[in-house]
Amino acid sequence: MSGNSFGERFRITTFGESHGEAVGVIIDGVTPGLTIDEAYIQIQMDRRKPGQSSVTSPRKEYDHVHIVSGIYEGKATGTPMTIVLYNKDMRPEAYDDIKHSFRPGHADFTYLQKYGLRDHRGSGRASGRETAARVAAGAVARKLLEQSGISVVAYTKEIGGIASTSFNEQEIERNPVRAADPIAAPKMIEKIEHLASIGDSCGGVVECIIRGVDPGIGEPVFDKLDAELAKAMISIGAVKGIEFGAGFEAARMQGSEHNDPMNADGFLSNHAGGIIGGISTGADIVFRVAVKPTSSISKPQQTIRENGEEQVIVTRGRHDPCICPRIVPVIEAMACLVVADQIKRQAALHA
Amino acid sequence: MSGNSFGERFRITTFGESHGEAVGVIIDGVTPGLTIDEAYIQIQMDRRKPGQSSVTSPRKEYDHVHIVSGIYEGKATGTPMTIVLYNKDMRPEAYDDIKHSFRPGHADFTYLQKYGLRDHRGSGRASGRETAARVAAGAVARKLLEQSGISVVAYTKEIGGIASTSFNEQEIERNPVRAADPIAAPKMIEKIEHLASIGDSCGGVVECIIRGVDPGIGEPVFDKLDAELAKAMISIGAVKGIEFGAGFEAARMQGSEHNDPMNADGFLSNHAGGIIGGISTGADIVFRVAVKPTSSISKPQQTIRENGEEQVIVTRGRHDPCICPRIVPVIEAMACLVVADQIKRQAALHA
Amino acid sequence: MSGNSFGERFRITTFGESHGEAVGVIIDGVTPGLTIDEAYIQIQMDRRKPGQSSVTSPRKEYDHVHIVSGIYEGKATGTPMTIVLYNKDMRPEAYDDIKHSFRPGHADFTYLQKYGLRDHRGSGRASGRETAARVAAGAVARKLLEQSGISVVAYTKEIGGIASTSFNEQEIERNPVRAADPIAAPKMIEKIEHLASIGDSCGGVVECIIRGVDPGIGEPVFDKLDAELAKAMISIGAVKGIEFGAGFEAARMQGSEHNDPMNADGFLSNHAGGIIGGISTGADIVFRVAVKPTSSISKPQQTIRENGEEQVIVTRGRHDPCICPRIVPVIEAMACLVVADQIKRQAALHA
Amino acid sequence: MSGNSFGERFRITTFGESHGEAVGVIIDGVTPGLTIDEAYIQIQMDRRKPGQSSVTSPRKEYDHVHIVSGIYEGKATGTPMTIVLYNKDMRPEAYDDIKHSFRPGHADFTYLQKYGLRDHRGSGRASGRETAARVAAGAVARKLLEQSGISVVAYTKEIGGIASTSFNEQEIERNPVRAADPIAAPKMIEKIEHLASIGDSCGGVVECIIRGVDPGIGEPVFDKLDAELAKAMISIGAVKGIEFGAGFEAARMQGSEHNDPMNADGFLSNHAGGIIGGISTGADIVFRVAVKPTSSISKPQQTIRENGEEQVIVTRGRHDPCICPRIVPVIEAMACLVVADQIKRQAALHA
Repeated sequence: MSGNSFGERFRITTFGESHGEAVGVIIDGVTPGLTIDEAYIQIQMDRRKPGQSSVTSPRKEYDHVHIVSGIYEGKATGTPMTIVLYNKDMRPEAYDDIKHSFRPGHADFTYLQKYGLRDHRGSGRASGRETAARVAAGAVARKLLEQSGISVVAYTKEIGGIASTSFNEQEIERNPVRAADPIAAPKMIEKIEHLASIGDSCGGVVECIIRGVDPGIGEPVFDKLDAELAKAMISIGAVKGIEFGAGFEAARMQGSEHNDPMNADGFLSNHAGGIIGGISTGADIVFRVAVKPTSSISKPQQTIRENGEEQVIVTRGRHDPCICPRIVPVIEAMACLVVADQIKRQAALHA
Repeated sequence: MSGNSFGERFRITTFGESHGEAVGVIIDGVTPGLTIDEAYIQIQMDRRKPGQSSVTSPRKEYDHVHIVSGIYEGKATGTPMTIVLYNKDMRPEAYDDIKHSFRPGHADFTYLQKYGLRDHRGSGRASGRETAARVAAGAVARKLLEQSGISVVAYTKEIGGIASTSFNEQEIERNPVRAADPIAAPKMIEKIEHLASIGDSCGGVVECIIRGVDPGIGEPVFDKLDAELAKAMISIGAVKGIEFGAGFEAARMQGSEHNDPMNADGFLSNHAGGIIGGISTGADIVFRVAVKPTSSISKPQQTIRENGEEQVIVTRGRHDPCICPRIVPVIEAMACLVVADQIKRQAALHA
Repeated sequence: MSGNSFGERFRITTFGESHGEAVGVIIDGVTPGLTIDEAYIQIQMDRRKPGQSSVTSPRKEYDHVHIVSGIYEGKATGTPMTIVLYNKDMRPEAYDDIKHSFRPGHADFTYLQKYGLRDHRGSGRASGRETAARVAAGAVARKLLEQSGISVVAYTKEIGGIASTSFNEQEIERNPVRAADPIAAPKMIEKIEHLASIGDSCGGVVECIIRGVDPGIGEPVFDKLDAELAKAMISIGAVKGIEFGAGFEAARMQGSEHNDPMNADGFLSNHAGGIIGGISTGADIVFRVAVKPTSSISKPQQTIRENGEEQVIVTRGRHDPCICPRIVPVIEAMACLVVADQIKRQAALHA
Repeated sequence: MSGNSFGERFRITTFGESHGEAVGVIIDGVTPGLTIDEAYIQIQMDRRKPGQSSVTSPRKEYDHVHIVSGIYEGKATGTPMTIVLYNKDMRPEAYDDIKHSFRPGHADFTYLQKYGLRDHRGSGRASGRETAARVAAGAVARKLLEQSGISVVAYTKEIGGIASTSFNEQEIERNPVRAADPIAAPKMIEKIEHLASIGDSCGGVVECIIRGVDPGIGEPVFDKLDAELAKAMISIGAVKGIEFGAGFEAARMQGSEHNDPMNADGFLSNHAGGIIGGISTGADIVFRVAVKPTSSISKPQQTIRENGEEQVIVTRGRHDPCICPRIVPVIEAMACLVVADQIKRQAALHA
């Protein structure tokens, strides 16, 4: 297995389990000379951490960014940059009673099937905690992209069936669900709080917009820009679907509607979501992901133990009733990583 | 760029353009001793070829499978297996008038931006013809999977807004749209024929079901089974979205609904689509892809020429008004490739 | 197995067996716009072909270069470039009597052990014929390097114990052994002819010099320039050793002798062979490889059959009594491939 | 750059600089269930550490093995195993006077050329300290190999021109130069001590023997077992050459001498060094590497500063006058990594 690396020229390798000592990442391919420090990365970690509001887990995972290698006198040296995030506020004993049980919706059963053994504490490597390393790495990619005028922003478009009807980018960081619609946001919050109160959870839809990518980025025919973004997003635990531009709606459109015409100023529409033939068009890159409801709920559920015995399980712990607000920075991070990697690949092609 | 390879242990590298001499593929990692011949592969090529019915392109691309290497006395030797599909019935002159224009929906603009030059004839490398090589390679993977009792079947679930309401697997190859619903199929055909008659096109939704995969297959955290399937599918030109199991509907469900409970006989539902934590559960793997309407339409469209001059363009040629029927075997092929690769990776992990 | 690809950004994947239809290569990552044609590549193929003189195999493998994809109007499109070299003058029946025997020095035994079956005809994939594809790909890399003022030249330094004592680059292509020493060359020829006459063979040493590589090329810590060159060279069937700069002599030097001092004009010596810390210094890159004596000899040798039965074997066929003259272009080709790839990787690092 | 990873299925990614916080490694692909602990790894670290005797650097780099992830209840989980070795006894100020100078033999000049900036302290990433991470990872691979009855042993064959004339494996760990010849060992020590006393250094030759590898391991045509070993060894800073079996001597042999005959008991000689056609024969795998004299010497040397100004430099610090004794475990580690990876690749091929 070398499934713990992502990217080719801006390549990350992550490690760590929920209840081990730390999670972290090695980034290989950071442009030498890039100015970056822990404070810059910390901003993104803080957007992902739990305990930010009433709608997220009350756990105290303050992820202090610690750079171990690859930086000298404030600049990237071009050698591997390692970032470690020590695990804090762990309560492994909270998982004792599910040590030999498979929690519905969790990877308990599949990890045991794959590996033959598993670290059951807080889902081990399958924990959402693993995404902390992605966010740290993504921040480094983001710094690189900023220098080329590229920005990446994601936001909650829908939660528990409550859809946004307006888009105001300024709103996103102003409400705890990271919605861009100030009318929908409180309804989403209410929905989450209600579900939390009855021990249930919900999912949602997150949209991501990447601006400023020059036309020409992407690697046909298999490593297309959208194909890599799809892999990146679906590799996030809770994501069950992705669509670009018009997406599944495109399936119901006619060619004459869906095709984006051009005039001298550029594209007149963006049903393609900024990518045609797997290559950026120069328009905004737009995609949406489907986020499933959090698997950890306190409602009783039917399951089995490792020995096959049936049981009713109640997942205790301090979980997010809806992961959308905290998945937003993870999605942005993965998008940054994909774009940074593809830009480097384009440079190699033309060298 | 090495974006023309896919897979790690069952690895394909494809080549060829629409109007070059041939398209083809090298497969590296075929299990030595596998019995395979051209006739077996030809079955899949014939499912993909144009000219099968009134709803597909009338082009005559009979793709004769030609194995160049890697087979000795009817068995795979374990060395690279090369399959070539010579291009036939090419009419490059049909593209002369669009040599310097960007057809809406096509990769003309983006290829020029990426590479600085392009082979405009029939979209060159960006042509759907490139998928012929995928289907050939997929057939080899399929042969391997058959030996493990794994089957892969895809079908058209929706076309032009007409959704299936029943599923009968036996129907799929009996109608030209490859629908599993014998009531919906004629309506889909009618829709396509109507749009073709007015020079327009439509898209649809294709569902794929993979049966017989043992639990435990998939490579967290980045090369998860669903992540690789997503990359594989989105790398197909016309695909704009993918969802697993409940997919985007999961975004509207509660955890108590979405979580798949288990009893001693296994999972009681399959909202996860057969994959949890990026690893197969043993249940059917189910995903759907959104297929955009064919870009080539004969309705006049607004675009520009390479020199920036605006023009109205009419895409001539012999195109599919809806690519769903012919994308079905491509989707199956890519699914076979992903699963074969992941099974080999699992074997390596435990060696 | 995906051991049939080499390089990351200028990446080749080869295929084909000695007595199959063809050998060939897909090159992924050719710089778009590169002007290249079959005639340019043919020059290198002609340097490698057998039958050039009395010291090489009399086989008639005229390798006609056939470009199948990746070129449009004389320029590389940046999409996969495929080159096919059809096999000619095959005499598979010549191998009938060794179908179930292991020829000493050949990979017959090991291929059977690895794959469980083998194509015995002319060594199948293990044949030196496989290097034809490398030479074709190397020619494309060479064209790219020429544009940056980089040249790659190899020559026979020693054959059958007869060492060169002078170096005149102009001599190399003037004698059939490709020696740079006009005094040693005829002695080498005589040695080879003598050994051929008694059914034996010999090896030699080939040196390669790469000029014009800017300082700064190479990818620590594992993909160092010398590490990649070493892998490339040792992957050639007959090569049993490689040394850089002072090489094994360095093991007998003192630091004060071996270290290359610098002054304002650059390095004052080049014991390092142009690479320090895995990165080019700007000085000539110099390495030597040990070439083993050709395994195919007509002297009787002791071996066993697949069933374990002992036998005395005589390897018939039309073999090179010394492969050095023909390995020279293969070594150059691999060197070109490594350098082209590393230059592209450097471009990606700084993007 | 992703040159900091090695291997495909047993894949390591290393990080860290000489005078940063730590060096370390992520190992991806450890067989789940493997029993391993820090003490086992520590044994190899202790063989590599400086300060073991009068012939090595007096630095106190006690490398305490610290496993951060991938182990649960004493067994590998199959998820990334991370090992960190904190840097101790650093004296960065010792390097202040060479901050802007290029030390002869060191990668100071080339790192600056490649990256545009450099961490000059103790050579930064180019330090031999980087190999500590390799040794830690190699110990994990060794544990895996032990279970298959594979052993890997290296020893000093020659130092400063003093060659061994006998081989007694039991002697290796009994003398500080790790020679297998108890007569030569004291002479080697004397030689090193003499050179150290005059501020100079020397190199040597190290041989490695891998026993117990089944026939059939190795991945033609580029990732051959010997090709991967060559890359692995040449990627070690001080190594300037490698030869397999008869090696450069093969260049002076005739085919009838060099070919290894077989009888019913196996091979009657092992000039091939246990690898033919890039695949293990089942015989011992034998190779030798050329180790250059340590670059850091206290004799005055001519060099330049970053600004081009000429100067005479004296490299201070606590350096090894001969690195052979300490490179032995590094070579073994890299050999273990290569073999473990190739065994896993073979398993994937046949899955």
